[in-house]
Amino acid sequence: MKVDGRPYRTIWPADDGRTVVVIDQRLLPHRFETIELRSLADAEVAIRDMAVRGAPLIGATAAYGMALGMVEDSSDEGLARAGEVLIASRPTAVNLAWAVRTVQQILRPLAPAERVERAYAEASRIAEDDVESCAAIGRHGADILEKLWKGGEPLQVLTHCNAGWLATVDWGTALSPIYAAHERGVPIHVWVDETRPRNQGAALTAWELASHGVPHTLIVDNAGGHLMRQGRVDACIVGSDRVAANGDVCNKIGTYLKALAAHDNGVPFYAAMPHSTIDFDLAHGDLIPIEEREAREVTHISGRAADGTVTEVLLAPEATPGANFAFDVTPARLVTALITERGVCEASAEGLAGLYPERAGKAA
Amino acid sequence: MKVDGRPYRTIWPADDGRTVVVIDQRLLPHRFETIELRSLADAEVAIRDMAVRGAPLIGATAAYGMALGMVEDSSDEGLARAGEVLIASRPTAVNLAWAVRTVQQILRPLAPAERVERAYAEASRIAEDDVESCAAIGRHGADILEKLWKGGEPLQVLTHCNAGWLATVDWGTALSPIYAAHERGVPIHVWVDETRPRNQGAALTAWELASHGVPHTLIVDNAGGHLMRQGRVDACIVGSDRVAANGDVCNKIGTYLKALAAHDNGVPFYAAMPHSTIDFDLAHGDLIPIEEREAREVTHISGRAADGTVTEVLLAPEATPGANFAFDVTPARLVTALITERGVCEASAEGLAGLYPERAGKAA
Repeated sequence: MKVDGRPYRTIWPADDGRTVVVIDQRLLPHRFETIELRSLADAEVAIRDMAVRGAPLIGATAAYGMALGMVEDSSDEGLARAGEVLIASRPTAVNLAWAVRTVQQILRPLAPAERVERAYAEASRIAEDDVESCAAIGRHGADILEKLWKGGEPLQVLTHCNAGWLATVDWGTALSPIYAAHERGVPIHVWVDETRPRNQGAALTAWELASHGVPHTLIVDNAGGHLMRQGRVDACIVGSDRVAANGDVCNKIGTYLKALAAHDNGVPFYAAMPHSTIDFDLAHGDLIPIEEREAREVTHISGRAADGTVTEVLLAPEATPGANFAFDVTPARLVTALITERGVCEASAEGLAGLYPERAGKAA
Repeated sequence: MKVDGRPYRTIWPADDGRTVVVIDQRLLPHRFETIELRSLADAEVAIRDMAVRGAPLIGATAAYGMALGMVEDSSDEGLARAGEVLIASRPTAVNLAWAVRTVQQILRPLAPAERVERAYAEASRIAEDDVESCAAIGRHGADILEKLWKGGEPLQVLTHCNAGWLATVDWGTALSPIYAAHERGVPIHVWVDETRPRNQGAALTAWELASHGVPHTLIVDNAGGHLMRQGRVDACIVGSDRVAANGDVCNKIGTYLKALAAHDNGVPFYAAMPHSTIDFDLAHGDLIPIEEREAREVTHISGRAADGTVTEVLLAPEATPGANFAFDVTPARLVTALITERGVCEASAEGLAGLYPERAGKAA
């Protein structure tokens, strides 16, 4: 999507065809800077230190990291080692391991001399597939938004966290329908939940929408229920970290509260995700272990001080204990529909089987 | 309640019988300091600059401010002027105007020479009445908590914002039942919502509970729904800014979302308030105009930096617009019961008429 009128992706090869460029997302929203990845180590650090984040983008970065690794050492040992280094950078990221293994499987039968070019080609294919998938989510979601718009006043859409192009290679998941509807000329205004504790809404979603030119307003996570009671939200769209076989949606902490408010006020509530997020082997959402992160993310927050430096401040008494649950589960009964690259379906086993007959059959 | 083992109120007369002492709440939770109010102007500034906050405490401060005004000028002009100065300090605070008029009515018939002593006596009575009222809320609420406790593990109570002793003269409203149950020996643990955007939970509720020794954990506002789905909340208790005649509860933004989650999970949801918060002339909560405050409270936050200074930081892109709704309305259907100084009642016109037959009769 666009930054100051110029189209960007979150990752791309530089003109030399070897160096890989990514946006340093740790500096957003206060500074827009790119990082050049020139080695396997650079790619590993970018993933580990969260210069790049979001499952699809981590996967694409890992694939390009494999290519950078092949430039350094395209032997069988080099192929194995590059995979180990990258997988260790964020051990729980499913897309990361998937991208590494995909590239390894393709390169293994090849002669070492052929591996560099093929690795770059495969990384590029993984990135393009993500763009295609997100664009398709955008088309299906925009069809819904276009129908919801009654003409006149802008359509009011609420989103939580950041499931935008910054989390993918381009377009995003939850934000892709918003960008697509915006490009079709549907007037749209987004209520952006700040999304404590890590504030991805305030920092990333607000920045994305501003950079691309989509009207939006930042609100605290507490405000969405009030807006829905006042009839000021026409639809909610969120992303997902994992969807269970029954349609339960695991997503950033606080999603469930917005789904309850949407249900209580007759506001449609959508979750958007690519097929890779759907876990057909998981019977329901309550089987998902919820990550607990360090309390410091709750008791402290960082932002830009008056002197321009990014500073962390303490919000609570020094000794206050905090608990930090990263995700919650929204029961399928509260989800109006799932939006995937294949289309829109009911949040249920039957709905998912309709879109993915070949995968739904494998479960149970 | 206690601070480091020593009992405190939020306002008290100094040993000279003239000076009035308050806690400077703007410095909490980072520093505990008191301010001596020695003149009408001191009292006006303490209210205007929010060194004191919370409707009952503002009322008590205004009453003592009238007494300080009488020390300076106890003539009829002085009596009128002191009232004008204080009422102008926070024009929308209902308890402020009520306290000023109460003191004026009592002093007006008296000779100027008698007014100083009587003003201090009346201010003291207003403060004591508030303490009595809050203590009664605590007793009634603690009866509920005591019954909910099944023995063994501590009772888990979630609260939103700060409706504690810092908002009143002592005990508080929502926190009073928690303090009372704690004193009765019911083991209790409080989930403290941070309460963006002004973070009264993180700053004030966490500080109160820590100072008095009640176990608690700070969470982001997004987390309560997840905790309730996990069966980790036994009851919710919140305060209220205004209760309508039908039992609808207007309270800090985000309260409605917690009430929805409580309802969805069978967790009892209580609102605690003194009779002065109940508006028998207001048919239902949606008639309450919701204050919109400046966006800066959403886009910025202040806390203690590493060097110990209290610093404000920007959380969003510089140009991001924010919307800041101060309150929301929780429909009576989501409220298990109201807890007042007279007892516990259903959140309904019938319930309120049972506790306040003399006032309910006046409406309709």
